[in-house]
Amino acid sequence: MTQQRIYNFNAGPAALPLQVLQEIQTSFLNFDNSGMSITEVSHRSSYFDNVINDAVERAKRLLNLDDKFHVLFIQGGASLQFAMIPMNFLSNDDTADYVNTGTWSTKAINEAKILNKNHNVVASSEDRDFSYIPKDIQFSDNAKFVHLTSNNTIKGTQFHDFPDTKEVPIICDMSSDIFSRPLDMEKFGMIYAGAQKNLGPSGTCMVIIRQDMLDMANENLPSMLKYSTYSSKNSMYNTPPCFGIYTIDLVLKWIEEEMGGLEKVEAYNKQKAGLLYDYMNSGSFYRATAQKDSQSLMNVTFRLPSEDLEKLFVAKAMENGFGGLKGHRSVGGCRASIYNAATMESINALIKFMESFAKENK
Amino acid sequence: MTQQRIYNFNAGPAALPLQVLQEIQTSFLNFDNSGMSITEVSHRSSYFDNVINDAVERAKRLLNLDDKFHVLFIQGGASLQFAMIPMNFLSNDDTADYVNTGTWSTKAINEAKILNKNHNVVASSEDRDFSYIPKDIQFSDNAKFVHLTSNNTIKGTQFHDFPDTKEVPIICDMSSDIFSRPLDMEKFGMIYAGAQKNLGPSGTCMVIIRQDMLDMANENLPSMLKYSTYSSKNSMYNTPPCFGIYTIDLVLKWIEEEMGGLEKVEAYNKQKAGLLYDYMNSGSFYRATAQKDSQSLMNVTFRLPSEDLEKLFVAKAMENGFGGLKGHRSVGGCRASIYNAATMESINALIKFMESFAKENK
Repeated sequence: MTQQRIYNFNAGPAALPLQVLQEIQTSFLNFDNSGMSITEVSHRSSYFDNVINDAVERAKRLLNLDDKFHVLFIQGGASLQFAMIPMNFLSNDDTADYVNTGTWSTKAINEAKILNKNHNVVASSEDRDFSYIPKDIQFSDNAKFVHLTSNNTIKGTQFHDFPDTKEVPIICDMSSDIFSRPLDMEKFGMIYAGAQKNLGPSGTCMVIIRQDMLDMANENLPSMLKYSTYSSKNSMYNTPPCFGIYTIDLVLKWIEEEMGGLEKVEAYNKQKAGLLYDYMNSGSFYRATAQKDSQSLMNVTFRLPSEDLEKLFVAKAMENGFGGLKGHRSVGGCRASIYNAATMESINALIKFMESFAKENK
Repeated sequence: MTQQRIYNFNAGPAALPLQVLQEIQTSFLNFDNSGMSITEVSHRSSYFDNVINDAVERAKRLLNLDDKFHVLFIQGGASLQFAMIPMNFLSNDDTADYVNTGTWSTKAINEAKILNKNHNVVASSEDRDFSYIPKDIQFSDNAKFVHLTSNNTIKGTQFHDFPDTKEVPIICDMSSDIFSRPLDMEKFGMIYAGAQKNLGPSGTCMVIIRQDMLDMANENLPSMLKYSTYSSKNSMYNTPPCFGIYTIDLVLKWIEEEMGGLEKVEAYNKQKAGLLYDYMNSGSFYRATAQKDSQSLMNVTFRLPSEDLEKLFVAKAMENGFGGLKGHRSVGGCRASIYNAATMESINALIKFMESFAKENK
């Protein structure tokens, strides 16, 4: 079966480590000798307690988190977080700073608007079609938080360093680059990530939140929309997305035990993306769309000499076993999403294919 | 592997049909010849379109739904619905009727309270510890909806018939008995169900909503908290819980093609529950806790002569390969949850075990 698998460059849901998938498959009818599938095990059982506690501990170890940080699992994707953040952290007179680096930041800002919460867009790269990450941002003095999107999957840009926001905590949507590199978590009051890119299947959002953020959050909210419900019940106020959390645990185990931690993951990701960008820079057929100093290590966006050639490229790639290379429907072009699970083998094979395609279609 | 599986009487997450699990396992590394796992396939691909459209069509066929009904998949479980319902359907001067038949109804009512929405608890079975389903309920004339919980997993009670609410639409939490019997959907403005009992893994809530309910819903809400976001985008405004929807599709296919539809499922469920209740009624060792006319076909709750015997029963059952027989932690006692996927074989084996346990411990 495995030899029929394609090279998967999907933006999300995206490729997962093969050995994680194999472990899920092998134990799917009998998880941990329970005599049940992981999908059939009670979330109130020791079987599942072991899973969720292991996932939390691995996340904390990988990011060097002390006990002032809580690792939560919430449903609804990053999109629900766009609403929960202003609901939880902005009361009547409060305000927040948002940096707009593309579609996902725009959506986050829009939910603050819908909720009628004060907010400032303190920087935006819309002037050049979101092809870069703004620098030298002037933040407000009185903001409750600064909201960033660490990586823009659609335009292929990424914060390589995070700005100094002084005493104001950063809340960061890391859906597409969480656990792809080490983080200095002291800067962050909260980070969150829909799982379906670097962590597991869609349907689970990991939220890592600092105790002082919980302390200042609005408590007068529906139970499922306040962070304290999740932090006080180890994400099990109601039935959590068990299969998602289980897969995330296996992916974190793979990062720790197979990849050797986040420093090594980052080095590997730099190497993989570097090969692709260097290859494109070596000629003129493929053109990376993001500004050089803002290029993403996760989503390599590029154009070919014409839209017809882009269509042909995507189709021929698919014929040759390379999936997911079409750019986001809102921007066109091409994109190779190369999250943690993308292998060096797949990058080398893709470059080889790109070389032969360029030669044939010059 | 399959011979090591236990008889699983978990209340939820609960047993799934073995052939569904086997199909997931077999195709887990290569879904539908995509060369990807179902967890790796883009939700914007034709692969996933086929899955979600098939699930929607099967749900509509099974329940005889015409096009005024929309089948949606939302994250956050029934617990998020408890909040979304008053948020979407109750404006300032509106009010709703709630019937309180136990823990889950109480939670639904509580979210209306948190949101400061007008509501009446028009009937409750709290006076006798939620052991029955109220009858002859007087509903308000001016309610926007009547909220019911069709089956109480904790106390083992179930609406066998739904009340006549005249022109007022019923909104019903069917988390534990959806697709366990045919329904006259004309009574319902909306039904909803967390998947983890009769439908699939935890993390996906199926919502079936009538067009006129969508028409009257509040639009000034965060995107992820209004039903129109889901109905206008075929539940794919953001990345949906793909693995959950895929499993639900396979379960619905099993109901249609293997079980033969909801009439047959209902007959089978009556037969299974009947065997258990009849066996308990034939002696005095096991005592069903729900009032006879309100007994659930899904959750058979019972007591033994003493708490010590109950503990021993649960432990010995586990040793003999019967899992999940402990009652809910809030009420104690014992419970056999026998959703659609519970087999006649498992019921017969359980009764045989109960007989021998009773004999040994009289």
